[in-house]
Amino acid sequence: MHLTLAAAETLVIDALTRNRVDEANARSVARALVAAEAAGQGGHGLRRVEAYAKQAKAGKVDGFAKPQLERLFPAVVRIDACYGYAYPAFDLAASVLPEIAREQGIALAAVRRSHHAGVLALTVERFAEMGLVALMVANATASMAAWGGRKPVFGTNPIAFAAPIPETDPLVIDLALSRVARGKVMAARQKGVDIPADWAFDRNGQPTTDAIAALEGTMAPSGEAKGAALAMMVEILAGGLTGANFSFESSSLFDDKGSAPGLGQMLIVINPAASGGSGVAERLAMLVGEISSDPGVRLPGRRGQTARRQALESGIEVEGEVIATIHSL
Amino acid sequence: MHLTLAAAETLVIDALTRNRVDEANARSVARALVAAEAAGQGGHGLRRVEAYAKQAKAGKVDGFAKPQLERLFPAVVRIDACYGYAYPAFDLAASVLPEIAREQGIALAAVRRSHHAGVLALTVERFAEMGLVALMVANATASMAAWGGRKPVFGTNPIAFAAPIPETDPLVIDLALSRVARGKVMAARQKGVDIPADWAFDRNGQPTTDAIAALEGTMAPSGEAKGAALAMMVEILAGGLTGANFSFESSSLFDDKGSAPGLGQMLIVINPAASGGSGVAERLAMLVGEISSDPGVRLPGRRGQTARRQALESGIEVEGEVIATIHSL
Repeated sequence: MHLTLAAAETLVIDALTRNRVDEANARSVARALVAAEAAGQGGHGLRRVEAYAKQAKAGKVDGFAKPQLERLFPAVVRIDACYGYAYPAFDLAASVLPEIAREQGIALAAVRRSHHAGVLALTVERFAEMGLVALMVANATASMAAWGGRKPVFGTNPIAFAAPIPETDPLVIDLALSRVARGKVMAARQKGVDIPADWAFDRNGQPTTDAIAALEGTMAPSGEAKGAALAMMVEILAGGLTGANFSFESSSLFDDKGSAPGLGQMLIVINPAASGGSGVAERLAMLVGEISSDPGVRLPGRRGQTARRQALESGIEVEGEVIATIHSL
Repeated sequence: MHLTLAAAETLVIDALTRNRVDEANARSVARALVAAEAAGQGGHGLRRVEAYAKQAKAGKVDGFAKPQLERLFPAVVRIDACYGYAYPAFDLAASVLPEIAREQGIALAAVRRSHHAGVLALTVERFAEMGLVALMVANATASMAAWGGRKPVFGTNPIAFAAPIPETDPLVIDLALSRVARGKVMAARQKGVDIPADWAFDRNGQPTTDAIAALEGTMAPSGEAKGAALAMMVEILAGGLTGANFSFESSSLFDDKGSAPGLGQMLIVINPAASGGSGVAERLAMLVGEISSDPGVRLPGRRGQTARRQALESGIEVEGEVIATIHSL
């Protein structure tokens, strides 16, 4: 089905507000999910509305939460998402961090008692569009083990980064630290096909080609021991240093059972002029020029930016089934 | 040959001060190189003294440089290493960042016109020993391409991280973003043996098992496209946002030819109490307990910490050839 972005947002807002979510939160969530859909990230898009709405109805997420901000140190804000959705907390961060970064040189937001972080690229890009550099990490329901281990302790724990580049779109990096998304293993199980041996481990920590064994085990980190170490770093920053739940303490983001996930996210925003003086913008343009001059290289983030631009003009295509599900809520 | 740490430092100080390095810089370098050696990181240890001394003698590194600090924003310091060694700049950062982080909540040091960053783990660990969390990135002479490309534009661009854990050593992560160290390819060339096909690309961007073709090409990033994207992030932070040279503009760290490398490093130090309140230390202990309870998991950084402790007690073993080279300088 074809939808304009505005129509898609209205659809999401309606579905959420009928399931114990207030108007302001529903708007924030709708904007984020539709932007994800527009950027070609359907897995963090409209397909999530069902779980989001059911969790609000069940009270696993608080649809009436108002994120609370506390600034006890000049360059750091703590944001309590109050077990609501993550996006209103990110909106709050985006409303205060730029000014703090411009004044202090760097600013940090630590978000706790939060929820699904969605497409981090879209959050960091907001800062780059204001001329700032942003780094963001998030934890997530546990699906990866520490290297050599068998117990899921870390989420796929994404790292995202955005930097402004003069006269073109920001450079945006957004990557989960698992080798592949867990959704790919779930899809293989549904189709009854094997998975490559480097995607996941079984419950004994051995590589497996069996999708069912993989889902009972752990996802393989990208870059083996190094990816697992980075997932540990993200866990400490996004979970430990925010006062959030750790990945292994969090409940599922996909069903309405159990207590609130209570996940955490950390955002660090840097004023390039503070760290690098006045010439940074031109230097970044030069770096991007050097990288782009190599045939075969595609800049990270460009595909999503192109897709969003096209979606703004001509709307998005969404599977009828997904729309029907949202209408039924 | 067996040496105490003090004797090893004296050896390095003598060699450097005879090659146009002042006493204070020689001390700082000696401490860093001997600590690297003690941590089992010989590739960043005494083996480097020859190149360090020859570069000072040739003026490629300024052995008399005094790093200069500028603080125009409350939470950010810019450090000009003035084409000297990196370690005196890190010492300067370590002398000011803790207080800034305690006051502001977060502190950033941007180091430019710098040199070989050595073992980043040892630098970030200093902050963790003071109860702070530290994140550090560095660029390096270009050896990796952007994903899909053929031109070396990024260094192996390491990321390091340290966090304090109550009643035990800090948790320390330190990883280069190449799949393996370039030294491994150089060793294979010397022995005349093939390398695994996932270590490097030839000059056409194709995987190669030929060590000579690999050295003319680029190193493979850890975690493929994701590692290459992280290397780009590090390049922007450590090179672009500091006002340093980019990796592709830097000269070699191994010979005394050409202009100064002028590399960059960025350090971010977080006060855990500012971002996470009073309970962070106990939470991190709990995370480490959860990770360690999984048999087969070894915490990152532990091997180096154990090696250093042993070296403090009983000294280090260094190849006679390395000592002879240092004596000859």
